[in-house]
Amino acid sequence: MGTVGAGTLQVIQDNQAEIDARARINIRVTHVGARNKELDSSQADIRLSKDIFEVARDPDVDILVESIGGIEPAKSLVLEAMASGKDVVTANKALIALHGNELFAAAEESGVTLSFEAAVAGAIPVIRSLRDGLAANRINSLAGIINGTGNFILTEMRDHGRSFEAVLSEAQDLGYAEADPTFDVEGIDAAHKLTILASIAFGIPLCFDEVYTEGISKLEKMDVQFAEELGYRIKHLGVAKATEQGVEIRVHPTLIPESMLLAEVDGVMNAVWIDGNASGPTLFYGAGAGALPTASSVVADIVDIARNHHDEAGNGVPHLGVDSAKQKDIPVLPISECTTAFYMRITAADKPGVMLAITQVLTDAGVSIDAIIQKEAEKKSSQVPIVLITSEAKESVLNHALQQIEALEDIVEPVVRIRAESFEG
Amino acid sequence: MGTVGAGTLQVIQDNQAEIDARARINIRVTHVGARNKELDSSQADIRLSKDIFEVARDPDVDILVESIGGIEPAKSLVLEAMASGKDVVTANKALIALHGNELFAAAEESGVTLSFEAAVAGAIPVIRSLRDGLAANRINSLAGIINGTGNFILTEMRDHGRSFEAVLSEAQDLGYAEADPTFDVEGIDAAHKLTILASIAFGIPLCFDEVYTEGISKLEKMDVQFAEELGYRIKHLGVAKATEQGVEIRVHPTLIPESMLLAEVDGVMNAVWIDGNASGPTLFYGAGAGALPTASSVVADIVDIARNHHDEAGNGVPHLGVDSAKQKDIPVLPISECTTAFYMRITAADKPGVMLAITQVLTDAGVSIDAIIQKEAEKKSSQVPIVLITSEAKESVLNHALQQIEALEDIVEPVVRIRAESFEG
Repeated sequence: MGTVGAGTLQVIQDNQAEIDARARINIRVTHVGARNKELDSSQADIRLSKDIFEVARDPDVDILVESIGGIEPAKSLVLEAMASGKDVVTANKALIALHGNELFAAAEESGVTLSFEAAVAGAIPVIRSLRDGLAANRINSLAGIINGTGNFILTEMRDHGRSFEAVLSEAQDLGYAEADPTFDVEGIDAAHKLTILASIAFGIPLCFDEVYTEGISKLEKMDVQFAEELGYRIKHLGVAKATEQGVEIRVHPTLIPESMLLAEVDGVMNAVWIDGNASGPTLFYGAGAGALPTASSVVADIVDIARNHHDEAGNGVPHLGVDSAKQKDIPVLPISECTTAFYMRITAADKPGVMLAITQVLTDAGVSIDAIIQKEAEKKSSQVPIVLITSEAKESVLNHALQQIEALEDIVEPVVRIRAESFEG
Repeated sequence: MGTVGAGTLQVIQDNQAEIDARARINIRVTHVGARNKELDSSQADIRLSKDIFEVARDPDVDILVESIGGIEPAKSLVLEAMASGKDVVTANKALIALHGNELFAAAEESGVTLSFEAAVAGAIPVIRSLRDGLAANRINSLAGIINGTGNFILTEMRDHGRSFEAVLSEAQDLGYAEADPTFDVEGIDAAHKLTILASIAFGIPLCFDEVYTEGISKLEKMDVQFAEELGYRIKHLGVAKATEQGVEIRVHPTLIPESMLLAEVDGVMNAVWIDGNASGPTLFYGAGAGALPTASSVVADIVDIARNHHDEAGNGVPHLGVDSAKQKDIPVLPISECTTAFYMRITAADKPGVMLAITQVLTDAGVSIDAIIQKEAEKKSSQVPIVLITSEAKESVLNHALQQIEALEDIVEPVVRIRAESFEG
C-alpha cells in the first residue's frame, strides 16, 4: 500500500462500473497486505494483513497485485502466490528484468498469468502494443524515453540553461527524484525497462546484465546548448536495434534531431518509438509514473486476466510474446560493436592547423563530419571549443580516433563525446 | 487482393517465423478470393477463387480476412463466414461504423471473433490500446488525426502557404488522395473511425448517424496563417468528449495549441490523443494507411485469434470493450450543444468603432476574447481583417453572437469561424 497500491485501490473503486462492464465480472479488492498502514473506515469490507504473505495464502484471492518494488520480499511473494494458483500483476520492473525468466517459467508451470504492463512506462500500454499490437512485425529498432526523472532534468537543462546538479536538487524537492537518484540518473531504471522491451521486440530471453548503461549525471549544460545549435536535442534514451551481427541494447544520453516527435517529449512524460518492418515508425506517449497512471496499467492487466477467466481460458498470450522455448539465441553486441553517429566537443588551443589535424584523424578512420560549429575563443582564453557531429561509425573505431585526437599536441582537455541517432531507415 | 489484401499476404510470408512463434501456431494463407487478380507463380500452394464467397465456404479456412472495403459484398461475405464458424478480420471502417452493431451481434451469436484493429489508424494499435490497455479508465476525451490525406493537405497548406485546391490536386497526383476525395476531405472517413473509437471509449453503441461532420475543403490558407501567428495549428480532428449532459462526437477543422504533441503530427501520419481519468493524457502515433502498415494490424488481429485458438478459448474480449447489453444509453449532443473555443476572422470596414461593436456583442453573450490580431488595411482596400480567439462557449450561443456581428453595419463579409480546443483539464 505504497503509491502504486493505493492508486490501484482508488482506480478500482472510482471506476468500478466501467471496469466491471469491461471485465465482464466484478473486480473487488478483498485483502490488502501492508506492513505499516491502516485502511480508512470507508474500506471496512477489505481484510488487512500486516504479514503480506497472508494475501498470497488467502483462498478467496484470485489475483494478487505486487506493488512493493525491489527484489525481496516481492519475488518470494509472487512465487508463493503463483504456486497457489493465483494470477499476479506487478509494476516491478527490476523484478521482471532481473528474475523474469525464472518467474515466467514458474507462471507457466502453475498455469497462471504474470502480467507487468505497469512495469514499463507507467500508463502507456506499450507491452501490449509491442507484444500484441505489433505482433506481425520484425522490429527493426526502438527508442524510449522511459525514465521521467531523467527527462525532467534534461528538459529543464535545455529550457533554462541550468546545470544538472541544480535541476536534480530541485527535482528532489519537488518529489520527482528520489533522495538517492542513482537508479534514475545513472540509467539503471531505464535499463530495467529496456531489458523487458528488447526481450519482447526481438524474442530473446531477458538479459539485463548485457545492457550497456550510461547515465546523464556528467552531462554539461554547454553540450545541451551546442546540440540545440546543431538542430538536436539530448535525450536519455533506451535504444534496442536489430543488426545483422546481433542486437544492440543500450541506455545513454543521445542526440536526436529536433524534428523527431520523440524530441518533443518533455518533462516527466515518457514515450517509446518503435519501428517495425510492416508498421513503419510508431510512437506511444504518456505518463511514465505516478499513482494513478501506474494503476491504470495495473488494472488493465487485471481486466485482461478477468476477461480470460470469464471464458475459462488459460494464458493465451506468451508472457514475452513467444514461449521461452521459441526465444532466439541472438548475441547482444558489446557497446564497442554498436554503431551510431557521435557528437564531439573538442577543446583545443586557439592555433592554426588544429582543425586540419582533427579532420585528418577522422578521415583516416573513415569517419566523416556531418556538421560543425567552431566558436571564437572567449576573451582572455587561448582555448576554443570545436563541436562536431560525425557520420555513423562503429564505437571501437570512433574511440580509437578519439584517442589519437586527444594525443594531438593542441588538444588541451579530454574530448566530450555523446552518441547521436537519427533513427532513419 | 487489393492493397490491403496483398500487404497482408506479404507480411504473413515475410515475417512467417516471428508470426508463427508469437501465435504459437502456423499461420498460412491457403485461399485467396480475387475477382480480377492472378497470383504469381511463387504462390502455387494458395487456392485462388474468382468467386470470393468460395473462401467463406471453404472448410479449411479458419480465419477470413475481408479487405474489399465498402458495404457490399463485404458485409454479406463477413456474415456468411461468421455463420459458418470462421473468425473474421477486417480493415473496413465503413462496414464497422455503419453495421458493426449488427455484425458484432452475429459474431456473438456464432461464437466467433470479428476483429477490426486495422479499421482505425492503420498500423497504430489504438483499438487494443483503448479497449484493453486503458480499460481501467473513464475516458474524458480523445482527439484523433485519423485521415492521412486530410493531414497531408493541411501540413502542405501550412508549410508552404498553398491553397487547399493546389495541394489536393498534388495529393491526387501522388496517390495520397482518391480521384473522388469526398470521403477524405469532407471528414466522412474520419467520422467512420471516430464512431468506432467513441463507442469503445464511452461504452455506447456505434452511432455514425449522430456524428457531426465538417470537412476541410472550405479552409482558406489565410486562416492557416493567422492561426499560426496566434500560436495554433489547424488540424482536421475527430473529437469525442464526455460531458455531464452527454457525449460530444464531432469531426471538424480545429485549432490546437502548437505546444501539443498532436500539433506536431504532420503529413500522412495519424495520431490519437486519449485522456483517461487514471492514465492522464496519452498519444498513439503511426502510419494511418498503406499496404504494410494496415497489414501490420490485420495480422496482429490474426495472431490474437490464433493465440485464443491455442487455448481453445472463446472470445475473451468484448468487441467494443463491453457487451452490447452493458452499453450505456448516453445522449450524443447535437453540435449546437457542444462547447469549444472559437477562431473568428471578421472582415470589417476600416472605420473607428467596429472593434467596440464586436466586443460589445461578444460580451453581451458572455463570451470573452482570449487573443486578437488586428491587421492594417491593405493599400487601396477599405477593409480590415479582425482575427480573434474566444473563450470556450456553447456553439448555439456563439452562433447567435455571430449573427449579430454579421448584422453590424460595418461587417462586409460572412465571418469565418473555426473551432479551437486546448484539451486541458
